[in-house]
Amino acid sequence: INIVVLPGDGIGPEVTAQAVACLTELSAERDLGLRFSEHDFGGVAIDRHGLPLPEATLEACRNADAVILGAVGGDKWNDAAERPEAGLLKLREELGLFANLRPARVLEALQDVSPLRPDISKGADILIVRELTSGIYFGERSSAHDAASDVCSYTREEIERIAHVAFRAAEHRRHKVTSVDKANVLATSKLWRETVTEVAKSYPGVELEHMYVDACAMVLITNPRRFDVILTENMFGDILSDELSVIGGSIGLLGSASVGSGGPGLFEPIHGSAPQIAGLNVANPAGAIASAVMMLEELGLGDSGRLLASALETTLLEGCRTSDLGGDASCSEFGEQVRENLR
Amino acid sequence: INIVVLPGDGIGPEVTAQAVACLTELSAERDLGLRFSEHDFGGVAIDRHGLPLPEATLEACRNADAVILGAVGGDKWNDAAERPEAGLLKLREELGLFANLRPARVLEALQDVSPLRPDISKGADILIVRELTSGIYFGERSSAHDAASDVCSYTREEIERIAHVAFRAAEHRRHKVTSVDKANVLATSKLWRETVTEVAKSYPGVELEHMYVDACAMVLITNPRRFDVILTENMFGDILSDELSVIGGSIGLLGSASVGSGGPGLFEPIHGSAPQIAGLNVANPAGAIASAVMMLEELGLGDSGRLLASALETTLLEGCRTSDLGGDASCSEFGEQVRENLR
Ligand SMILES: CC(C)[C@H](C(=O)O)[C@@H](O)C(=O)O
Ligand SMILES: CC(C)[C@H](C(=O)O)[C@@H](O)C(=O)O
Repeated sequence: INIVVLPGDGIGPEVTAQAVACLTELSAERDLGLRFSEHDFGGVAIDRHGLPLPEATLEACRNADAVILGAVGGDKWNDAAERPEAGLLKLREELGLFANLRPARVLEALQDVSPLRPDISKGADILIVRELTSGIYFGERSSAHDAASDVCSYTREEIERIAHVAFRAAEHRRHKVTSVDKANVLATSKLWRETVTEVAKSYPGVELEHMYVDACAMVLITNPRRFDVILTENMFGDILSDELSVIGGSIGLLGSASVGSGGPGLFEPIHGSAPQIAGLNVANPAGAIASAVMMLEELGLGDSGRLLASALETTLLEGCRTSDLGGDASCSEFGEQVRENLR
Repeated sequence: INIVVLPGDGIGPEVTAQAVACLTELSAERDLGLRFSEHDFGGVAIDRHGLPLPEATLEACRNADAVILGAVGGDKWNDAAERPEAGLLKLREELGLFANLRPARVLEALQDVSPLRPDISKGADILIVRELTSGIYFGERSSAHDAASDVCSYTREEIERIAHVAFRAAEHRRHKVTSVDKANVLATSKLWRETVTEVAKSYPGVELEHMYVDACAMVLITNPRRFDVILTENMFGDILSDELSVIGGSIGLLGSASVGSGGPGLFEPIHGSAPQIAGLNVANPAGAIASAVMMLEELGLGDSGRLLASALETTLLEGCRTSDLGGDASCSEFGEQVRENLR
């Protein structure tokens, strides 16, 4: 099993190193046959090759069984012709990764670091299903000196396929989908609501509710337990999933999977490259490790995935915490502790 | 002084009635000469006239010194040719109300109802300055059976004028502007960032920082005290201001002012029409009353505004609470208590 690793920028390399070390350990113990190869991507690829997604990197990803990504971006490349983020968008598009899955759970052991009151956050367990290869991220852009525009568009088919992902996920969870849009204003949102309502008919066991994005931004904080699966378009998903991420205590805890129809998936923590703490060995590798768990599941190695997930959870329960969680474990100490718990 | 009142839909009529009663009281006591006239707007105007913003209503607003709005919308009009919300957008556009000011403060007396931990929410005091007449709300739309699109566009001039509003507001506050965009992806956001940076040069006493919208959605929850004035475009402002609103305990507490360059301003609570509790006399009129305070300030009646603001705050400090704040005061009881405190 051939895994491409794109460490990327900022804290990307240090957190992916810990995730890869965990996977290597697991692979050896359980004879999974995972093989890793690193490639340049993001700002570091701009520095070395002049563009964020070099052809060789894209080729390697296409031929891989899965791709692990750290993080990309940083002020350093603000004026690059093509920014690191453009490389990420291109990679998502080229690999056809239209479905971004971002699960967030409030662990009892970490309730003290959630900014929410414990009675509100307790037990929240939400999966955001974000459409990832369309909407305003991929519409036509125009920029002149005195004006600029971005187009948000969606086809019915694009909405249908992401809706199916959400409903199927809900069937294995608590059977509820909240579809988030701004149908009182946007044409794309009206099509979104209509199409999702149509798709819902094929899933009689799943309850569907619609919610406006502004209301959702509130309810995520006042009553997160009300949600099971949240289904939404690209830009709303970007905002809501970051908002959701802190409810569990730190964005550093969360992983994500981006998948499409058949090819390799992309697995990355949802945090950014955090240049200000890069290289200090203080970043939280939990999000990268959680992404590795999602990768194992996606590769059909769910048993191994559960082992790694429980080693990660045990590490957190034991009180091993990086600085984002108010602790003083280093990035590598945390990773080592997860591997210790794997053994 | 000629004030047009648009009670609108759902709880709109009951909350505006309380605000108007407070203003009437104040006007009599201090001889302000406020005169009120009610007009149909929103769903109720669709029912009576076939469209949400009848010409007569628009005319009345144009000739007014200020406009007080309750709320518009409701599932009942989902299939109307023109929805209630379209009337609101049209009214904003026709009156040139490009600046929407949404202040939120966490009152110590209400900290127990904030979903955030008290150590996090304590003392937060934020003003969101939202651009209100451009962006994806006002771009071209297209809808076909199988696809739809919405265009987000901004001109440099549109960004400049709203940026000036934010910087001027910051000069009377804590001298900090956080400009929120998605400049790592959107062309409009790049223009936004560039233009705001330019405008900032005229305000050497105000600190400017830039933040991505996804990061802002997080920091609002993890560290709200970090913000003074948040400056952002229309859609991001819609989402972030609703998110912010609950930090103080309830969206029912907050008012807003929409102003432009010269004509009458529009003053409305930021909550919606809440059809499920309409007519029950349980809605919180505090947001409508807070909007009336902002109207008085805008009309140059700041002294009267401060009196009303302090009567409102005293009412909350005394523990008078509607159901959204866990209390059992009715809408009219709360309003009456504010008037009692005015006397
Ligand atoms: C880096 C950026 C382009 C990206 C996005 O907006 O999709 C990130 O915020 C994310 O959520 O994965
Ligand atoms: C009713 C709706 C059109 C409106 C908006 O999105 O601007 C509302 O949510 C608001 O924030 O005032």
